[in-house]
Amino acid sequence: MQNETIGFQFFKSTFFPKNFLHSFSEIFDWIHGQRKKIRVDIKKIPLEELKHWSFDKFFSRFLHGSGKFFSIEGIQVQSNFGKINEWYQPIINQPEVGFLGFIVKEFQGTLYFLTQAKIEPGNINYVQLSPTLQATKSNYTQVHKGNKPAYLDYFFKVKPSHVLLDQFQSEQGARFLRKRNRNIIIKIDENIEVLDNFIWLTLGQLQTLMSFDNLVNMDTRTVLSGINFGSIENITLENYSKEISQSDLESDFLFSTLGSNAPYHTFTEITHFITKNKYSYELEIKRCPLSELKDWSLHDGIIQHKEKKYFSVIGTRVEIENREVTCWDQPMVKPTEKGLCAFITKKIKNSFHFLMQAKVEAGNFDIVELAPTVQCLSGNYTNNELPFLNYVLKAPKELILMDTMQSEEGGRFFREENRNMLILADDSISLEEPNNYMWMTLEQIKHLIQFSNHVNIQARSLIAALPFARREFRDFNKKN
Amino acid sequence: MQNETIGFQFFKSTFFPKNFLHSFSEIFDWIHGQRKKIRVDIKKIPLEELKHWSFDKFFSRFLHGSGKFFSIEGIQVQSNFGKINEWYQPIINQPEVGFLGFIVKEFQGTLYFLTQAKIEPGNINYVQLSPTLQATKSNYTQVHKGNKPAYLDYFFKVKPSHVLLDQFQSEQGARFLRKRNRNIIIKIDENIEVLDNFIWLTLGQLQTLMSFDNLVNMDTRTVLSGINFGSIENITLENYSKEISQSDLESDFLFSTLGSNAPYHTFTEITHFITKNKYSYELEIKRCPLSELKDWSLHDGIIQHKEKKYFSVIGTRVEIENREVTCWDQPMVKPTEKGLCAFITKKIKNSFHFLMQAKVEAGNFDIVELAPTVQCLSGNYTNNELPFLNYVLKAPKELILMDTMQSEEGGRFFREENRNMLILADDSISLEEPNNYMWMTLEQIKHLIQFSNHVNIQARSLIAALPFARREFRDFNKKN
Repeated sequence: MQNETIGFQFFKSTFFPKNFLHSFSEIFDWIHGQRKKIRVDIKKIPLEELKHWSFDKFFSRFLHGSGKFFSIEGIQVQSNFGKINEWYQPIINQPEVGFLGFIVKEFQGTLYFLTQAKIEPGNINYVQLSPTLQATKSNYTQVHKGNKPAYLDYFFKVKPSHVLLDQFQSEQGARFLRKRNRNIIIKIDENIEVLDNFIWLTLGQLQTLMSFDNLVNMDTRTVLSGINFGSIENITLENYSKEISQSDLESDFLFSTLGSNAPYHTFTEITHFITKNKYSYELEIKRCPLSELKDWSLHDGIIQHKEKKYFSVIGTRVEIENREVTCWDQPMVKPTEKGLCAFITKKIKNSFHFLMQAKVEAGNFDIVELAPTVQCLSGNYTNNELPFLNYVLKAPKELILMDTMQSEEGGRFFREENRNMLILADDSISLEEPNNYMWMTLEQIKHLIQFSNHVNIQARSLIAALPFARREFRDFNKKN
Repeated sequence: MQNETIGFQFFKSTFFPKNFLHSFSEIFDWIHGQRKKIRVDIKKIPLEELKHWSFDKFFSRFLHGSGKFFSIEGIQVQSNFGKINEWYQPIINQPEVGFLGFIVKEFQGTLYFLTQAKIEPGNINYVQLSPTLQATKSNYTQVHKGNKPAYLDYFFKVKPSHVLLDQFQSEQGARFLRKRNRNIIIKIDENIEVLDNFIWLTLGQLQTLMSFDNLVNMDTRTVLSGINFGSIENITLENYSKEISQSDLESDFLFSTLGSNAPYHTFTEITHFITKNKYSYELEIKRCPLSELKDWSLHDGIIQHKEKKYFSVIGTRVEIENREVTCWDQPMVKPTEKGLCAFITKKIKNSFHFLMQAKVEAGNFDIVELAPTVQCLSGNYTNNELPFLNYVLKAPKELILMDTMQSEEGGRFFREENRNMLILADDSISLEEPNNYMWMTLEQIKHLIQFSNHVNIQARSLIAALPFARREFRDFNKKN
């Protein structure tokens, strides 16, 4: 394995293993067992009654007594992007950079990911598959007096040669003010104890599990989205096809990842597109006390919009019963409606291209990030005239390559799920690109992801879930 | 030329032309003529007496009456980088993104750059070689009631296929608060009038001219630093060497740019290095009124440090006499001493590597940027214990590959020049890398430059000036 590139190791973990450590039926049994073992009780209570949380004296912010974790603050947004050029909104301010980390280890020549069945109170299903480590500094410096997160030390003592991926990535720019996490994958050689709520899965298995609703959490999706097969020598598409007999569609996506073919745009055109959009779109954020947020008010213990649009900030009391009972209070963001994130994909010059949107969101670190072709969070999107929205909503079944519900981060969002779709372009979708849209191959998108804050969480989440390796699962389905 | 990559076009403009549009003696005559044509008078006057500039009512900021251009503000800086963990300082706040743009055009198969002899009041020599366009929004929306900058329209009407480079790049993080410029190179096919103070030069000529003190301005250096030859097909090092008979050193630098050889670190290791440093270094900036800046005061019409260290902010009255007389007042930053920026370079695995430093500076857009091995601005550096400083200062002549004085931006800095050095590593410099240092090839550095805010202006300035194409000039020198 010494001479294999990291990309090739990831590639093998996606496609090659014949005998998994755990079959899909074992995995589902295990998840089922994990879900049965816990009882989660989550009560909505007024923000003013949350233990350890309070508004500061001028009703300017809502924050934890320790000053740690995160706070709910207000901002005034001005931008020339979109139809509304000024608005006010509450936003989550969490300046701490957290760890989203996977430990991987080689078994029988294949990388396995140490995956956690993690309880998050906001999640639909409560338990979802998460990275080995999900921890903010407040977590691991133990502000909340809890235990140190499992496996934390591995991430601090890792040698550079064992870091397979290490990137800062953004979270939802419409909800978080410039929040970023450190997405990291490290490899260990030594034996490691697998705790009760952890399991070894291949990359292909994790991607396959993303075809289920609300099963693989957002943090897993963002870390995996950064994985790049790179230029894989010794593998031509032909001999790879023989080896694993993918369907045409899966071969095509692989082809678009490996960049074996000429992309529609050069990388110089892509950096020009990004720079031009950052230059022409303005985004000005001013802090504004919660008490002075236009159109928003604290009502019945909830911070809400006067027309009950977008989202609200609610108070929750969480009680989790496992072997012992854990209890805490926290605010959460509750969306008004389900959102929609969709990519339109089209074969150009023999390679699948994705129509990327340069999008301004209030909390973006650097004005613009690349978003899916259509992105409407907690929507009202049926009344909207967003480009390509109609095409996506009216796409016939045979053009829908992917259609699942995926949860946003269950530690901050109360049952926020978005519809994730991948739609094939028909002849009505030309090569023409509206001003802030551009066709890119997967290889190009993956290349941009390497450099923090270029591709937003919604786009990354879709990219992570692309149907690469469904063969094993189809085999499993046939048997069951 | 249709099928040539952009990288190859730049490559040819560096090495190939046999007959230049202008010989070096013509160029020097022309520069001399441009310098003789103008008279610049710059008087130091107290800040309080600057026309159109004033302190706001609480002595919080010093700004222009229009609210445009830039302002001098105060910040409190906290960081765990370096020995001093808290300080106060004035800083230039210029939120507008300016254009630094070159127009290039092909003559006899070679790209030429439309270079401007530009007057900047702070410059040593006043006139230096600058990009075709240097303009902030305030310039081209004509806040100062001047004329529209020459050639501006070409940059607004350019087609994406004619954009050869387009990147946001940072300026001095120790002086500017998150300032960025749009570095852009566009190609034109049509004929264009060459105004009196403009001249067509090849990339190789521009790089050669950087071996002179204070001749090529900072804005030219930053734009050119982003140029990447990419993977140049049909050129192996051998047939290129035959063609242009470079010295060994020049071949070696080219080799390091083309990345023909295995670099010491993979790109995954590089992104890990950057992420790790961004994660471990903290940088907190709080605005602070100028009147409350600890250790700084307004004295004799100058904002200065109590020990007269670092820099001061002075008032200037500028009078430029060309065909007509132009006159204006503005504040400028005046360094106390000359600074030093130096790279140590070492041949590793047959390819030159540069020892990059991950450095925190107060005005950085994202905490850390990659800086030269040694960077001390307006110095006091002889008393300092910076890593590698001693090695650089004591390097014997035969290890010094480059040693010039280069000016910083003459529109904001009053005669700020820094010594730019490139030093060959001897055996005392091992492969060992202190915590925030890493050896990288030129190809890797160029790749990072593509993605804004990764490589700082001091490092880019050195990279731009590397001795690639000195042959023509040596020939010229022999003749004269």
